[in-house]
Amino acid sequence: MHRELPGFTETRAFGNLMSLAEKPYDLTGPSALLEKGRLAAYRCRSGLLSLYYATQRVDDAVLLELQNLADELQLVEQFKGMRRGAVINRIVGYESENRQVLHTACRDIFDSSPVAPVATAEAKKELEKLKKFLKELEDGKLCNRNGQRFDTMIHVGIGGSDLGPRAIFEALKAYDFSGKKVFFISNVDPDDAAGVLSQVNLKTTLVNIVSKSGTTLETLTNERFVRNAFEKVGLDPAAHCIAVTGEESPMDDPDSYLRTFYMYDYIGGRFSTTSMVGAVMLGFYLGFSQMMEFLQGASVVDRESEETDIRKNISLLLALLGVWNHNFLDYSTVAILPYCQALHRFPAHLQQCDMESNGKSIDRIGRKIEVHTGPIVWGEPGTNGQHAFYQLLHQGTEIVPVEFIGFTESQYGQDTVVYGSTSQQKLLANLYGQMVAMAIGQDAENPNRVFQGNRPSCLLMAEKLTPRVMGALLATYEAKIVFQGFAWNINSFDQEGVQLGKILATSFLEKMNQPAGDCSDLHQQFLKQFSAKI
Amino acid sequence: MHRELPGFTETRAFGNLMSLAEKPYDLTGPSALLEKGRLAAYRCRSGLLSLYYATQRVDDAVLLELQNLADELQLVEQFKGMRRGAVINRIVGYESENRQVLHTACRDIFDSSPVAPVATAEAKKELEKLKKFLKELEDGKLCNRNGQRFDTMIHVGIGGSDLGPRAIFEALKAYDFSGKKVFFISNVDPDDAAGVLSQVNLKTTLVNIVSKSGTTLETLTNERFVRNAFEKVGLDPAAHCIAVTGEESPMDDPDSYLRTFYMYDYIGGRFSTTSMVGAVMLGFYLGFSQMMEFLQGASVVDRESEETDIRKNISLLLALLGVWNHNFLDYSTVAILPYCQALHRFPAHLQQCDMESNGKSIDRIGRKIEVHTGPIVWGEPGTNGQHAFYQLLHQGTEIVPVEFIGFTESQYGQDTVVYGSTSQQKLLANLYGQMVAMAIGQDAENPNRVFQGNRPSCLLMAEKLTPRVMGALLATYEAKIVFQGFAWNINSFDQEGVQLGKILATSFLEKMNQPAGDCSDLHQQFLKQFSAKI
Repeated sequence: MHRELPGFTETRAFGNLMSLAEKPYDLTGPSALLEKGRLAAYRCRSGLLSLYYATQRVDDAVLLELQNLADELQLVEQFKGMRRGAVINRIVGYESENRQVLHTACRDIFDSSPVAPVATAEAKKELEKLKKFLKELEDGKLCNRNGQRFDTMIHVGIGGSDLGPRAIFEALKAYDFSGKKVFFISNVDPDDAAGVLSQVNLKTTLVNIVSKSGTTLETLTNERFVRNAFEKVGLDPAAHCIAVTGEESPMDDPDSYLRTFYMYDYIGGRFSTTSMVGAVMLGFYLGFSQMMEFLQGASVVDRESEETDIRKNISLLLALLGVWNHNFLDYSTVAILPYCQALHRFPAHLQQCDMESNGKSIDRIGRKIEVHTGPIVWGEPGTNGQHAFYQLLHQGTEIVPVEFIGFTESQYGQDTVVYGSTSQQKLLANLYGQMVAMAIGQDAENPNRVFQGNRPSCLLMAEKLTPRVMGALLATYEAKIVFQGFAWNINSFDQEGVQLGKILATSFLEKMNQPAGDCSDLHQQFLKQFSAKI
Repeated sequence: MHRELPGFTETRAFGNLMSLAEKPYDLTGPSALLEKGRLAAYRCRSGLLSLYYATQRVDDAVLLELQNLADELQLVEQFKGMRRGAVINRIVGYESENRQVLHTACRDIFDSSPVAPVATAEAKKELEKLKKFLKELEDGKLCNRNGQRFDTMIHVGIGGSDLGPRAIFEALKAYDFSGKKVFFISNVDPDDAAGVLSQVNLKTTLVNIVSKSGTTLETLTNERFVRNAFEKVGLDPAAHCIAVTGEESPMDDPDSYLRTFYMYDYIGGRFSTTSMVGAVMLGFYLGFSQMMEFLQGASVVDRESEETDIRKNISLLLALLGVWNHNFLDYSTVAILPYCQALHRFPAHLQQCDMESNGKSIDRIGRKIEVHTGPIVWGEPGTNGQHAFYQLLHQGTEIVPVEFIGFTESQYGQDTVVYGSTSQQKLLANLYGQMVAMAIGQDAENPNRVFQGNRPSCLLMAEKLTPRVMGALLATYEAKIVFQGFAWNINSFDQEGVQLGKILATSFLEKMNQPAGDCSDLHQQFLKQFSAKI
């Protein structure tokens, strides 16, 4: 399919956008934000989310060309193909993973006719297993050897098996009604496991070990670390450990685990949050039905993302606005700034999902890419960030496009009126204030009080951060990342870039336990210089 | 002083560095890292830290010109002036803060002849107050109305009053021997306070409210939020609240607080971690003497940072390598990647400290700057990041200079041998593996397995992350940021860039509680569009 499509720079839209980028919409004029009903016109509403983008440096001409770009590159067609099982995780002509990309099938479970029926049937089967498992825990059928219920889970994983689940756990703490505890171990740093183990009662703890391949070094090491801790206090680890892994992976071993849940090779780690990778922990913590609401929110967005009109498709529009900022206005990073403390780890997950997917330099037939691919993604919650790095956003020499995220209501609904307004009102007022300040800037006689303005932003907004909305937000960003990968004609689903470091780490490890040898060897030299005492 | 100095681009070194940047050192050659004893030569050791920089794209010629740049711009002289009380927080000819910059005086308390005696005497006085307070808590002289000891502290602050203290708290959890608990509230998002309050026993909780001005909206709002919670359960907030604020600020009120500790206007928020802003919470959590070790580590580095030879001054060298990467090799961001889970919030603090200090566009006499000032700073711990965004670091189209941080030993000293090596060995092997992989790259027939290499990095290393080493690391980065600000001839100590957003937030707040009015009003229009239900 891809070979028949024009390359990014070969589209007619590319040239037109290059011209338009020479004079992007000026947001600083006195009525620049109000002209032609801009605030209402540059707004896209869907089932659960709204995207406000009047504070981007775009006008109707730019939006039209972005639509043309999407059409010429058949972005929505490609997305539809992905959801229906096209083998798009590959580099044509070279050895590659050659896989389907079907994370969306994990949540296409609410309709009687899923678009990728085989994968969705597999997802449903695992969900049924999970439902039964959670019921057994709840009923007390499954408990520790003293008949006590499991009240704690340690989730052991790294990267895609950690960041997404952890971000969602943090985001939905307000919906824990059972008082259960969840901890995470990810880093091979032994202090990560030691710190967590110092806080839990192992007797009533389940350990959820998550590795698709069943061979992830950090995860297996931490699993051993935790199993040792059980053994030290005379407990049988196999009675406390469960596994999320690929069928027939080295971890698919009923003797070692109380239960095993499967994920499949058509789901990449960084897109696996809605598979068993996230669902087991979230089901344990939030209960099965709230976890299902999370999946449902994602499912709604997946279907909405097949809309071809970019002004009615939030994920696609977000992707194209990002392409405009990155490739045409030449900004190398994007900041994701949620005005919501519960989303404090969501930017870290998106940093992974985006940068691992689109930090690539060759296209889908192995040619070197001429344009910039994935940007650097970073961010922290507001209003905190306002007292931290926003100085640079307003007055620095680096321009940073911002994607704000906000909610009309708070999660706990506990609030206090101070100085005539609630905290939630203050939070939103600050969010709106920042959008306007970045856009319009400020003139002043004191040069230190001049704000240049024209710093682009947009806002993804929902009523309240519920499990369903969280699913929608996650799926929106997953689709955004996929659309951008399609636009740049790269394979967003492999990660060859992490291999070389692993190989070199293995070489170092081998040398560490050998006597010092050949002095011209790079590894020996490194170890000699770096390991000496200060 | 500054007016007599050449501007950054007016130095002779600038032109020479521009020429050298046309062909920076190639790290990808087969022996590029071993030539001329490079690993040993490009290493700087000080009392507590080592900096390894052989994997930067520099050679002796570049280092010589960076030395010349430092000399021409009198960076060390300016640093000495700062420590001795020069009024450098100002823009000459315009209204500005006109203050000294003396965070270093807070830790210059171990020598009989401090370089800024008045400020250090004030710091000592507060430390004595703190010591007495902690003793009273320990002895049980100061306790709640039922005679119970305070075992929990909620630290309420934002930005500089939050990120630094929180990062250090997280970094030093392994040194808590008392079992005390500490929580943080920062965001004006009401869920932040509600989430924390749901976890604490107010009866035995001290609330530490930190605001230099005593007027920070978020902090005062959260203070009120917390005080309401005390009142609701029939407790007197004044018997549970302590304050860290400026002398004579609105918060300097003995009727409302159990104790008040002072910070002074010559200490900026983002540089205030070693003042009472961090010391009160750290003293409560770690005990007075471990907190003093943290200050001592910082004090050691402050003195070392007055060395004029850049190859013997870690902070200065780190600053200049950053300038080389940012201004001459044209990389817009820098990633700080600690191979240490305990430092997981240290990059967020440095993001603040750096971007708020150096995200500026005018110089110290109010002229627009021609070069790039502060970079975008971001980062997460390794090895986690390897499974997240490192794909882009290795194969993306954006080049990201990396500052690694590592330690020979772990904090807890609990470790397990798995597959023939300890976790700590695996952690270090991965760190070294990444440095080498980024530098040398890899050729391959499969274009997807080609690594371009020449991606610069360096490593700050110490034996173990102790309180003392943490102080040294913090002071190293503080000095690095200050040196870079001096190099670009900007005022790193104000933050005018946060004002406009605050003003606009206030306007929005006013409109929120008024009936909808003038439709041509930007604020009303925003509220109308954004607040409508989806």
